[in-house]
Amino acid sequence: MTTAVFPGTFDPITNGHVDIVERALTFADRVIVLVAHNSSKAPLLDARTRVGLAEASLFHLDGVEVHTSEGLLVDACRELGADVIVKGLRGGSDFDAERPMALMNRAVGGIETVFIMGDSALAHVASSLVKDVARHGGRIDSFVPEAVATEVYAAVAAQ
Amino acid sequence: MTTAVFPGTFDPITNGHVDIVERALTFADRVIVLVAHNSSKAPLLDARTRVGLAEASLFHLDGVEVHTSEGLLVDACRELGADVIVKGLRGGSDFDAERPMALMNRAVGGIETVFIMGDSALAHVASSLVKDVARHGGRIDSFVPEAVATEVYAAVAAQ
Amino acid sequence: MTTAVFPGTFDPITNGHVDIVERALTFADRVIVLVAHNSSKAPLLDARTRVGLAEASLFHLDGVEVHTSEGLLVDACRELGADVIVKGLRGGSDFDAERPMALMNRAVGGIETVFIMGDSALAHVASSLVKDVARHGGRIDSFVPEAVATEVYAAVAAQ
Amino acid sequence: MTTAVFPGTFDPITNGHVDIVERALTFADRVIVLVAHNSSKAPLLDARTRVGLAEASLFHLDGVEVHTSEGLLVDACRELGADVIVKGLRGGSDFDAERPMALMNRAVGGIETVFIMGDSALAHVASSLVKDVARHGGRIDSFVPEAVATEVYAAVAAQ
Amino acid sequence: MTTAVFPGTFDPITNGHVDIVERALTFADRVIVLVAHNSSKAPLLDARTRVGLAEASLFHLDGVEVHTSEGLLVDACRELGADVIVKGLRGGSDFDAERPMALMNRAVGGIETVFIMGDSALAHVASSLVKDVARHGGRIDSFVPEAVATEVYAAVAAQ
Amino acid sequence: MTTAVFPGTFDPITNGHVDIVERALTFADRVIVLVAHNSSKAPLLDARTRVGLAEASLFHLDGVEVHTSEGLLVDACRELGADVIVKGLRGGSDFDAERPMALMNRAVGGIETVFIMGDSALAHVASSLVKDVARHGGRIDSFVPEAVATEVYAAVAAQ
Repeated sequence: MTTAVFPGTFDPITNGHVDIVERALTFADRVIVLVAHNSSKAPLLDARTRVGLAEASLFHLDGVEVHTSEGLLVDACRELGADVIVKGLRGGSDFDAERPMALMNRAVGGIETVFIMGDSALAHVASSLVKDVARHGGRIDSFVPEAVATEVYAAVAAQ
Repeated sequence: MTTAVFPGTFDPITNGHVDIVERALTFADRVIVLVAHNSSKAPLLDARTRVGLAEASLFHLDGVEVHTSEGLLVDACRELGADVIVKGLRGGSDFDAERPMALMNRAVGGIETVFIMGDSALAHVASSLVKDVARHGGRIDSFVPEAVATEVYAAVAAQ
Repeated sequence: MTTAVFPGTFDPITNGHVDIVERALTFADRVIVLVAHNSSKAPLLDARTRVGLAEASLFHLDGVEVHTSEGLLVDACRELGADVIVKGLRGGSDFDAERPMALMNRAVGGIETVFIMGDSALAHVASSLVKDVARHGGRIDSFVPEAVATEVYAAVAAQ
Repeated sequence: MTTAVFPGTFDPITNGHVDIVERALTFADRVIVLVAHNSSKAPLLDARTRVGLAEASLFHLDGVEVHTSEGLLVDACRELGADVIVKGLRGGSDFDAERPMALMNRAVGGIETVFIMGDSALAHVASSLVKDVARHGGRIDSFVPEAVATEVYAAVAAQ
Repeated sequence: MTTAVFPGTFDPITNGHVDIVERALTFADRVIVLVAHNSSKAPLLDARTRVGLAEASLFHLDGVEVHTSEGLLVDACRELGADVIVKGLRGGSDFDAERPMALMNRAVGGIETVFIMGDSALAHVASSLVKDVARHGGRIDSFVPEAVATEVYAAVAAQ
Repeated sequence: MTTAVFPGTFDPITNGHVDIVERALTFADRVIVLVAHNSSKAPLLDARTRVGLAEASLFHLDGVEVHTSEGLLVDACRELGADVIVKGLRGGSDFDAERPMALMNRAVGGIETVFIMGDSALAHVASSLVKDVARHGGRIDSFVPEAVATEVYAAVAAQ
């Protein structure tokens, strides 16, 4: 049985993340979405909300779990019995940015990272861009699951 | 059970290829090295030799098979029961070059490609560079398995 | 009135090329598809066929013409009254490859090149990959206009 | 008539920006420099100053206007009657960074982005580097119009 | 005699930096590690500690000096009699990010930048990743000299 | 004393190559232009002509020599007493393409490669593009030294 960990801030989870999870299930029996608890990125949504939205968005998929993590990614991977880390790639620059982290996780925790391409039609669906659209009054319901859109609209209105 | 196909010309197989196969075994139970029979690249070694060297170089690994293919990669994947295609990446340009092919295989055959990073210490061990060194009289025995070095020296001497 | 020249080998024209022409029409009143006559790339289809297929594939679009060229691109642009050259980009490596040519055309002919992104859903639809699929017995009718598919199947069968 | 919007923070406008505007005029009849009012980047100069400097720097060019915007870029484009968004590119990484935003603007507003190469001799003239040089006591008058240099020296001295 | 300046924040110096210094000594007789005093990056360690750790880590190498700088890099280079600036590169994106700065230093100070590749086996050893590992309770003693590890553990514990 | 080897096909030497040699002289006392004798690239000009044109184009520079080589680059470097190999870079993709070769030369011959940026204003002056312009009847005298232009015009006329 192959277990893959898909780490991130998921602030919020998007249709792009859901797509990566679905593709990871082609080679992994179990995919764990690992929500980083304390991000240096000052998330829009608190960790509990991010986890809840991820669970609601992935409920329809078998073999998927949502966990949170506060420490080293490689420590969480060991505790969760992960065989590999999964990351999505859009272009060459993404890989250049991910490579040092993937090599560090290999060096520190002996764990491999596998990279998969998301759906081309979702190449623009990044959490940061989605929040940006919402903050400027645009509609985001074609980029995120319905429950996510509602939470994001509320959170940007409260800022 | 996860089956991964690792396609290429393997002209010849190098320590870099062996490293990718070993890493693929962290998430795949079965890794099939698929040697492209008729390459447009005018290989140095004939297909039979390339297959034999791959088999000899991977003999020590459980769950690894070597096959050849003449048609569409996605057809071979279907016949072999592959869940994913595996490719090694060294830098961002590699990904930009692989992406259209991976998207085409997804469009034509519905099969995903997963990308893994080879050992950094082998980043220069490409078949083309290895042959180049051998052609100019350099030693290649730290880049390829022993049996491969012998065949390559003989083949370049015969050119 | 803005005239844009879209140069290439068009061996054959694909849905990806048609998409670029349609997008170029958002800023250009007249888009000229310029088929390079004597390519160093040993085309599968002769120039006359490539022109004919381009014309058939673009017939439905107003403001589009198909021409051929044998000399310097910048000379053809001058004769055709072009304001800019148009090129499609898929990733960062594409731009790095196009940049020296675009700078050379600026230096030699004083003409600018503008780059546009094709439809993400067509990112894999390159002429070379389409021919590769056809050569190996795969179907290409979702990547090229119908008339093109027929010609390509015939040409690869005749090889 | 083709209208192009060139969006940015313009903190401050540089000779590099002026060069892009001049090149955009080869295919656009009207180029609108759109100064983002509320940037998350904590600009050195206030929006009014940035607009004023842009106007002074582009005064010599026919068909150029300077506007400000507070909301979604695509909404501003619609109100201004823009046919395309224009962006300058220096290297492949620039394109990889711009692509998701360009795809998002296409998805949200149905507007295309065209990319043009600036003058190679100005490849280093970015607003951030210019401010950095000024902050450390260097001269910037070969990188920005004269009125801009005066304002930037005053602003960094006041920090 | 060739003098090279290797500028950076060195927060902290890593085995990767030491490796670059050693390689720079293959063409430079004198390599000056130039620690930027006031970084906008909010360093973990104060400038005096960063200088001390750099000195301790490079003590075994002949021809190496450690200096600090507060102003323009090109001014420091002139005062130190530098012939070139040295930078390490890991991938293509690194070069795209360094290029504008290198061109600016050429334009402002007439000084060239030469780029060298670090040891592939240290491609993940970046100061930011090392601090990240330490903050999350991981071990960093295989990435930095011994004295550095002690200081970093103390500094992250005090945060 | 620092000796740098600048290897290539030099078919023909361009103003871009001359620029790199001049910049290499800022850190090297002796720069050796090493013309690859037997290139797999089917050069337009024979090796003797390429050497002669390089000598004529570099005659005005002190500390520059032109040599030819038939074997491994690292063997030539050893015989010539080279401390480093020098390569010019234009963009990130260039570096990704050069890196495996540079790592191979380090592995096989223990020699470092240093990368320098050419003059931005010459970013389009590549031998292949220059020949392409000449073949199509364009003028190349602003891209290559005068003697080179004469030889190239003659060679393309004789093809």
